[in-house]
Amino acid sequence: MIDKHDRATAQADSAASTATSSASGDAHESFLRDFDTMGGFGATGHGGVDRQAASEADNEQRRWFQGLLEGRGFTVEYDRIGNQFGLLELVPGAPYVLIGSHMDSQPTAGKYDGAYGVLAAAHAAFRIADEASAGGASAGVAEGAKYNVAVVNWFNEEGSRFVPSMMGSSVYTGVLPLEDALAVRDKAGISVEEALRPTGFLGEGAGPVAALCAEIHIEQGRLLENAGTTIGLVTATWAASKYRVVVRGEQAHSGATVMEDRKDALYGASLLVVFARELTDRFPGKLHTAVGQLDVYPNSPVVVASEVTLLLDLRCDDEALLAEANALLDARFAEIEAKADVEIERTLSHSWDINPYQPAGVDLARSVAEELGLSNDEIMTVAGHDSTNMKELVPTVMLFVPSVDGISHNEGEYTEPGDLVAGLDVLTGVVRHLIRGNLS
Amino acid sequence: MIDKHDRATAQADSAASTATSSASGDAHESFLRDFDTMGGFGATGHGGVDRQAASEADNEQRRWFQGLLEGRGFTVEYDRIGNQFGLLELVPGAPYVLIGSHMDSQPTAGKYDGAYGVLAAAHAAFRIADEASAGGASAGVAEGAKYNVAVVNWFNEEGSRFVPSMMGSSVYTGVLPLEDALAVRDKAGISVEEALRPTGFLGEGAGPVAALCAEIHIEQGRLLENAGTTIGLVTATWAASKYRVVVRGEQAHSGATVMEDRKDALYGASLLVVFARELTDRFPGKLHTAVGQLDVYPNSPVVVASEVTLLLDLRCDDEALLAEANALLDARFAEIEAKADVEIERTLSHSWDINPYQPAGVDLARSVAEELGLSNDEIMTVAGHDSTNMKELVPTVMLFVPSVDGISHNEGEYTEPGDLVAGLDVLTGVVRHLIRGNLS
Repeated sequence: MIDKHDRATAQADSAASTATSSASGDAHESFLRDFDTMGGFGATGHGGVDRQAASEADNEQRRWFQGLLEGRGFTVEYDRIGNQFGLLELVPGAPYVLIGSHMDSQPTAGKYDGAYGVLAAAHAAFRIADEASAGGASAGVAEGAKYNVAVVNWFNEEGSRFVPSMMGSSVYTGVLPLEDALAVRDKAGISVEEALRPTGFLGEGAGPVAALCAEIHIEQGRLLENAGTTIGLVTATWAASKYRVVVRGEQAHSGATVMEDRKDALYGASLLVVFARELTDRFPGKLHTAVGQLDVYPNSPVVVASEVTLLLDLRCDDEALLAEANALLDARFAEIEAKADVEIERTLSHSWDINPYQPAGVDLARSVAEELGLSNDEIMTVAGHDSTNMKELVPTVMLFVPSVDGISHNEGEYTEPGDLVAGLDVLTGVVRHLIRGNLS
Repeated sequence: MIDKHDRATAQADSAASTATSSASGDAHESFLRDFDTMGGFGATGHGGVDRQAASEADNEQRRWFQGLLEGRGFTVEYDRIGNQFGLLELVPGAPYVLIGSHMDSQPTAGKYDGAYGVLAAAHAAFRIADEASAGGASAGVAEGAKYNVAVVNWFNEEGSRFVPSMMGSSVYTGVLPLEDALAVRDKAGISVEEALRPTGFLGEGAGPVAALCAEIHIEQGRLLENAGTTIGLVTATWAASKYRVVVRGEQAHSGATVMEDRKDALYGASLLVVFARELTDRFPGKLHTAVGQLDVYPNSPVVVASEVTLLLDLRCDDEALLAEANALLDARFAEIEAKADVEIERTLSHSWDINPYQPAGVDLARSVAEELGLSNDEIMTVAGHDSTNMKELVPTVMLFVPSVDGISHNEGEYTEPGDLVAGLDVLTGVVRHLIRGNLS
């Protein structure tokens, strides 16, 4: 497995490794052309995109994607939380191999996150459709098939506009009740249902039945790049604890009130942000923490804040260390309450242990990468993905391609075209096996 | 002068001290009745109000106040930034003694801040109007008058919806260009002009010409209460430095990005909030600091913040100490840039030295309070007031009444009715002198 301590290894040249797929040159070109088109939806003008869930840019892209799928003969349908499916029927009535990711983005985000995985899934399915309809040896694809193929564009994976993230796959897999998801409101007070209803993307059913799943995504870190590895075989998700924290103080005049009378919620929250960050110094390379969202009330220049709400995450590649970090955080909450004269309420909104993908899927992905002559290694994912939900429901294969400099959720996000098409080839090979049920 | 070190002195009973004004019992009752009515505009249901500038609650109250003034024979007019004036003409063509404060509020604020001063000004003017129109000895008020009286309700003193604060008095006194003020937008993108235009409160002219000014306000601290003093004779404003700070980092995935790669703007901002607060420990009782407003971008649960904007104030009763605090802050900015790998841009948006009111006004206020048998002492104001602008233009008297527990910008703000009417009596006495030009 690649970890932070062996970055010097495996200096394989990823450009060379993708040369093996030159036979699929046309397919690669077609993929890269479509990917360029996708980068235009919600383009920020600085190389990035802003396509928050059910925004006009997200909607436009979905309409375009529907056309792309229908143009290749796929049936497009939407489920009751707005997940978009492109169906290729090989075995009438059989369940589906679900492949895809999400096309929504963070604000001022990169164009690879999620979008790459959806388009790679579509192009993998296009190849399989071509193979199935062609004569000769490749006709065997259809003949040996046990399952159909569904390309999926999950709704609202990012959770920037509507919390929580991974909303579409959470409803699909039953971990989030539909009613709760539809009722979530953005900061302008618009609910998911109100945002989706006028788009025509709100269907009735529960979507196609899945038998197996695969997703490909950019790494969003720099382990693959540092190791010179093209394909990441994702074995597990880091353990995580996610808190919603409310710091409560008291409104006061920010000038006149004597300092010792103040119960400043923003001071308390800031002590917490600083602690959370500096906690990672005690677990170098093992613990990631973040406060990405923080809202101040009343947020006026001359009022001491009475309430600050923030989201605090701890992620760790070791469950025992995570427990240790949580215990330190616990102790610090009490210290901050005393120091800033505030009350802190915290709710553990999500938490999970080290969460493995099915080893048979990792083995399958490895064998496909090896057949294609692509450098590969096992890797864990720090971020959650829709496949994190799916693997609880059905055996799921998760693949990574490198992110240059590990930059993600940033307009500067970049993956080499050679790596994009290498990933497409591996995903296509994996899906060829999955539709035959080859996952021992 | 009252300061934090002599709180044990002067335990005069404020209830007893206001008994001397029992002759004005009817006027007091009428004042308190009107003040109760005002507390209903934008009432929060928890004893407070929410009447941000040009909100519906602010507009309603202005319409009510216009009716109150007109009912007493005053002419009501509005200037080009929406300041509301109630004019009482005693000497045709003469300039005005401007008395008043502001009726807008912070969100979930108290009902005394500003509103008390406007209504006290109105009732002081009502008494003077009655005296002027009455026969007998009190007719002398009009006969000796050199100036007219204008009650003023300044637009947007609080600055919570539209920054900067003290907007109306800043435009009136020429320190803020009209065009800049009208163009300021709230967070919903509505400009001051767009908010004011439909209300009918946007006039054409520059308002009545002022010769002298007086304002009464709640203290918003607890020095008067601690000393048992009813009337504060405000001698000066604390020195202040107000910064607009932008902390710039880089968007990144809040889970996947390795910690040492992060340029977390919120971590940098939090270090600054903590430093600013803890800086006050080095200057006990002498330095007040605050960050009341802080905005995070993109403020998404799974994105490291690329930009945080905040407003940071330092206020001090000693100019040399303020310079020392600013130097420490300077040094800390650089340390935070290095520690959090961010860039910090800061703009000194406002700054002033210890800013005295005219001593003759302090003497006049003292003599009136003494005549009424009300305990009084000199005091500085930490907060800015509209009179802070006015005293640069014309000689200005500033008065305080006590705030229970020093609570302000909070629904729990409270001043004893006895103190409210004592302040009204002193203000009335001061205005009687001012209209005759008695300010030696």
